[in-house]
Amino acid sequence: MEINLIYYTPLGVADRAIGKCWDKQKKEVDKERMYRVGNKFKHSSTLEHINYTFDIDGISRACLQELARHRHTSLSVKSTRYTLKELKEAKYLTDFYVETGNDAVDDFVYNAIENVQEALQRGISNDIVKYCIPEAYKTSLVWTINMRSLQNFLKLRTSKAALWEIQELAREIFNKLPEAHKFMLEEFVR
Amino acid sequence: MEINLIYYTPLGVADRAIGKCWDKQKKEVDKERMYRVGNKFKHSSTLEHINYTFDIDGISRACLQELARHRHTSLSVKSTRYTLKELKEAKYLTDFYVETGNDAVDDFVYNAIENVQEALQRGISNDIVKYCIPEAYKTSLVWTINMRSLQNFLKLRTSKAALWEIQELAREIFNKLPEAHKFMLEEFVR
Amino acid sequence: MEINLIYYTPLGVADRAIGKCWDKQKKEVDKERMYRVGNKFKHSSTLEHINYTFDIDGISRACLQELARHRHTSLSVKSTRYTLKELKEAKYLTDFYVETGNDAVDDFVYNAIENVQEALQRGISNDIVKYCIPEAYKTSLVWTINMRSLQNFLKLRTSKAALWEIQELAREIFNKLPEAHKFMLEEFVR
Amino acid sequence: MEINLIYYTPLGVADRAIGKCWDKQKKEVDKERMYRVGNKFKHSSTLEHINYTFDIDGISRACLQELARHRHTSLSVKSTRYTLKELKEAKYLTDFYVETGNDAVDDFVYNAIENVQEALQRGISNDIVKYCIPEAYKTSLVWTINMRSLQNFLKLRTSKAALWEIQELAREIFNKLPEAHKFMLEEFVR
Repeated sequence: MEINLIYYTPLGVADRAIGKCWDKQKKEVDKERMYRVGNKFKHSSTLEHINYTFDIDGISRACLQELARHRHTSLSVKSTRYTLKELKEAKYLTDFYVETGNDAVDDFVYNAIENVQEALQRGISNDIVKYCIPEAYKTSLVWTINMRSLQNFLKLRTSKAALWEIQELAREIFNKLPEAHKFMLEEFVR
Repeated sequence: MEINLIYYTPLGVADRAIGKCWDKQKKEVDKERMYRVGNKFKHSSTLEHINYTFDIDGISRACLQELARHRHTSLSVKSTRYTLKELKEAKYLTDFYVETGNDAVDDFVYNAIENVQEALQRGISNDIVKYCIPEAYKTSLVWTINMRSLQNFLKLRTSKAALWEIQELAREIFNKLPEAHKFMLEEFVR
Repeated sequence: MEINLIYYTPLGVADRAIGKCWDKQKKEVDKERMYRVGNKFKHSSTLEHINYTFDIDGISRACLQELARHRHTSLSVKSTRYTLKELKEAKYLTDFYVETGNDAVDDFVYNAIENVQEALQRGISNDIVKYCIPEAYKTSLVWTINMRSLQNFLKLRTSKAALWEIQELAREIFNKLPEAHKFMLEEFVR
Repeated sequence: MEINLIYYTPLGVADRAIGKCWDKQKKEVDKERMYRVGNKFKHSSTLEHINYTFDIDGISRACLQELARHRHTSLSVKSTRYTLKELKEAKYLTDFYVETGNDAVDDFVYNAIENVQEALQRGISNDIVKYCIPEAYKTSLVWTINMRSLQNFLKLRTSKAALWEIQELAREIFNKLPEAHKFMLEEFVR
């Protein structure tokens, strides 16, 4: 997978929101106050003013099923209905799926991708072909999430009980955050 | 697919909410007023008091991908991570996937389900095996949606441009609504 | 204030949703499992299938300001823009506001209500008159909230740090819940 | 009222999200495509990646009651519970409320503000005093809303049927948008 943070709101916007509640604006971002209000006192709505937009590329559709279950986010996903054709003439099928590391399963996936390609070459419509796509099939999306929701996402998805791929995704998302923001999120990474 | 409406809020609850705004309660549900306020004047928040809970069984994971994109709903989905084992000793694999009607694709799906079964029998863990599941694999969920969101769902998903399976799902959901509620929703079915 | 629970979803609906995830339906509601899944393991989305609709009468507009800040709820509020006229000919102005118990403040409020009445009698439009309404002015609403959001509401609003009136409201809402549901919510009442 | 746009996401972020769905990225923002996808085809979720944060100062608490009813926004509001003290020693009480232009009502409001000041000077706690605040009392907030929700807000609140002050607020918010963004929002201003 390849994760890129393509946009984010500077901390100052949340700082200003926090200052508003008590009518105390500061000249510089007061990180100590932000941590106290947002994380310690759990006045979490003040953190919603900070948004992160990621380009997430190369996760599986299995992982997308879980990612899409987080409702306080906005996602724009590469549509299999409109983009399957790129597989039709492809030479390197291994580019199109997430490997699990288990040879038997990876072989089954490879075989399935070959079948998808064959179905496309026979001219069957994408809306039918998509039913034989394996869940390892790679997808791509633009994902926007605010700091409050991201705290919740990291907490749930870096858990050892989470699916291995979304654990990896969650850790990689944390890694790609601006260094100056991490003090608000690191305690949610397990 | 098999859709059952397992619970819903009676219309009187929305009627009472509408009456509250103008402080005019009525003895019986005033459907004409409900239609005027909710659908004509688009004071749609009054319709959020009515919730429908469906048991949706036998849709594909492809269809679930789209269903889960509607965020103003609550869904509790049969987890492949915990329930794949039912396939391990199954005799009739055709019970486990949605047929597309295209023989080639259905054969590819059948073949993939056989592979999933073999992987399970080899003792590979569900979290790895799930990567070779085809999107036709059947799932099941309990789904709660309020009347306002359902209007939006029906409008988007009964469109001829929608995926064929979710069109069928949307129409079946409309069919299973209480007859007395349909006057508020029928104009959203295309 | 007068709080009435006018509708709620039976626990069985959440029980069925929980059973769905692991494909284990039970004949009777398994409260122990519901508590474990919903409250202990925090798989809280399963609790969203249970909705409560309350008729809340006689809280102040000050209290409404706070109540309306909870976004995962649906509220239909008696509109001052359309209902102020009921005050125009009223004899007992004390019916129209929440008493604080402090004589000076209550007198100021009474005086303000008299002014509102006078403004109405002079024929000034509601949309102008509403600017001199005191925050003690009573309002009324129909409020729908699901079990998950209600847990959060009770936790925040029964806190000693919350405004006294919303503390009272939150406790009264808990009291009016069905006895059979309280085991899921009581730990959030402080 | 004084409205300032303190932060916003550049259009390119939504452009990238739109390109993702069909896997067609462009070098420059394609406004024609954005309008077609977002406004004409109503694929509105792609517009959620664009957020606007406003500093809204000097609106009445009456107006806040309506503003807070829009749930797909984040608001951090100056708390009367913590900031009423600023009125205690104030000389110019006219700074503290929104004028309606009707002399009788404005006088009633002025009188009420004097009472609030007196109550504060007597040492009565903010949580009691707030009950005699008139709805004209000025408040201030930091407000974040995405482009999709803002379209809905403008449509509802620039209507002639809306409260005069929120009409003014909605128009002023539109005016303060970046010029380059207005083509996506102007059709919602009535």
